[in-house]
Amino acid sequence: MRRKEFDMMDKEETEHFLQEMSFGVLGTINEDGWPELTPLNFVYHNSHLYFHGSLAGRKMKNLKADQRATFVVAKEYAIIPSYFKDPKLACPATAFFKSVMIKGHAELLSDLEEKAEGLAAFMRKLQPQGGYAPIDPADPDYTGQLKSTSVVRISVSELSAKYKFGQNLKEEGFEQLAGQLLQRNEGLDAETVAMMEALCPHHRKSGAVAPHDGE
Amino acid sequence: MRRKEFDMMDKEETEHFLQEMSFGVLGTINEDGWPELTPLNFVYHNSHLYFHGSLAGRKMKNLKADQRATFVVAKEYAIIPSYFKDPKLACPATAFFKSVMIKGHAELLSDLEEKAEGLAAFMRKLQPQGGYAPIDPADPDYTGQLKSTSVVRISVSELSAKYKFGQNLKEEGFEQLAGQLLQRNEGLDAETVAMMEALCPHHRKSGAVAPHDGE
Repeated sequence: MRRKEFDMMDKEETEHFLQEMSFGVLGTINEDGWPELTPLNFVYHNSHLYFHGSLAGRKMKNLKADQRATFVVAKEYAIIPSYFKDPKLACPATAFFKSVMIKGHAELLSDLEEKAEGLAAFMRKLQPQGGYAPIDPADPDYTGQLKSTSVVRISVSELSAKYKFGQNLKEEGFEQLAGQLLQRNEGLDAETVAMMEALCPHHRKSGAVAPHDGE
Repeated sequence: MRRKEFDMMDKEETEHFLQEMSFGVLGTINEDGWPELTPLNFVYHNSHLYFHGSLAGRKMKNLKADQRATFVVAKEYAIIPSYFKDPKLACPATAFFKSVMIKGHAELLSDLEEKAEGLAAFMRKLQPQGGYAPIDPADPDYTGQLKSTSVVRISVSELSAKYKFGQNLKEEGFEQLAGQLLQRNEGLDAETVAMMEALCPHHRKSGAVAPHDGE
């Protein structure tokens, strides 16, 4: 059930998250009709999703036969134990997380300039410190590599994000949980509380939708 | 292209990884034929995969119409920059990771005892510290909750794992990369080198397939 209170509508925050996360999971349809899932590194660039791989790979074969692709990127922030809310029942146990879901048609690029553009954005994201020559199809050291590498561009037709950080809690429950997480202070608990405060309707600061600028 | 050198055949190591990881991504087929991806918490228990959710959720609707499910769990250990190998070209950039892929038919459980068994395993994994009463259908505080919670059990028909930790490297390249990662020493670099040593054919210690017992 899609609960509207967890929808993240802020495009800038969503794109920031896609830039922060190095990998996601690609879903394609196999020749036998099964969903096929492949974890892979990606970049979201100019409203397109790019990744690369072997021409002989199964995901490439699937996408040649059926261009429909779904991609999900997810990060778990905190597991909320049941006893934070109820001393007896296991039911309130949950997890707080961010996830982004993308759907679109995938195209295997053949134009070397287009391949180079996607791979350049990919490298800027995943190797921001540089340390390589610009990816240029005219550079003979790159030409053959660009020809033999399969680069996929997904034209994004649907992008939605779900951020679950207790937006459904009433004020009292919110304050209690934030206090419990700060007291536990494991893993990403402090970041979780910052996200709770940024997203909670009772606590939303003017203009501040997500804390990534002030972290 | 499936490269055999990255296949992880050790069942105990794979199950350890599934126990360590709190969430994965479920793939189902939507009514319009698109792959539908849902990140969710799970437990792998007695060769079955369990998760729960809302009866009204889209994944439940999909699974009622088409039981075929794929589930993937992935953890990235290290991004390997291109300049570790080549001073000019971006091409050698890669990532080391573990991933497990499961396929099977999903069943929405209706028997309360079966639901309770799955949820109990789920809670033992995700809330190992306890702090809740045993999940018992005879406990009136649990009966209604068990009825209204949708619990899915996937009968695993295929389970495969891919661990990419430089198993394709020759001795010299292996030693150089291990040294570079230990020098960088960010994030999971030390754990990455431990996995490289455990999995590399040149370095495999007798009987030790993975370092999780000795971490």
